[in-house]
Amino acid sequence: NEEVQKKEPLQNKKIKTHLDSKIGRAMFCVVREFLEFFNLDFTISVYEPESYLGTGYQYTTRSQIIKDLGISQLDETSTVPLLHQLIELAQLQNKVIDIN
Amino acid sequence: NEEVQKKEPLQNKKIKTHLDSKIGRAMFCVVREFLEFFNLDFTISVYEPESYLGTGYQYTTRSQIIKDLGISQLDETSTVPLLHQLIELAQLQNKVIDIN
Repeated sequence: NEEVQKKEPLQNKKIKTHLDSKIGRAMFCVVREFLEFFNLDFTISVYEPESYLGTGYQYTTRSQIIKDLGISQLDETSTVPLLHQLIELAQLQNKVIDIN
Repeated sequence: NEEVQKKEPLQNKKIKTHLDSKIGRAMFCVVREFLEFFNLDFTISVYEPESYLGTGYQYTTRSQIIKDLGISQLDETSTVPLLHQLIELAQLQNKVIDIN
C-alpha cells in the first residue's frame, strides 16, 4: 500500500483532500472561473496543472459549477464572476444573522 | 488626458474597474488566500504580478480581508480557506430564500 501511495500522481495532499468532496471541486472551479473572467491567462496556464485540473477535477460551465454548489441564487448570465456573487450572498447571510 | 491614460500601468481594464471597489480588492485577496492555503506557489508567483498585487491592491492578513468584506461570520482561525467559508454562507443564504 505504501508503494502505491508513493506512485500517487496527486502529490499535494491538502488539495487531494478537498478534491474528494463536491464542494471542494466546485471551489477550484470558482477560482478557475475568476481567473478566466479577468483574462489572467498566464496565471491560468500555471494554475491548471498545479491544481490538477483534468485529473483531480473537471472545469466545464458556469451553470455546472452553480449546480455543483447547489446555490440557485447564483446567476450564470451575470456580468460579474461567481466569486463576486458568492461574496454578495455571504454578506446577505451575515445581515440575516445580525437581525436575528 | 489620453496621454496619461496611455502611461497607465494597469493595462487590464477589467481588473482595474474591480480594483476600484473595496469588495473588488477583497475578492482578489480571497483568491490569493486560497492559493496560499493550498501551497500553489507557482500559481502565486504568476498571479501576484498579473493581478497587480502591490500596486492595485494590498494583501495583508485574513482578519483584514474579513473586515474589508464586512462579513463577521467568517472565522479567521478556520482550517478551511475563506472561499470555502464564503460558499457555506452563500449556501445558507440560499436556504433562507428557499424557506421564505
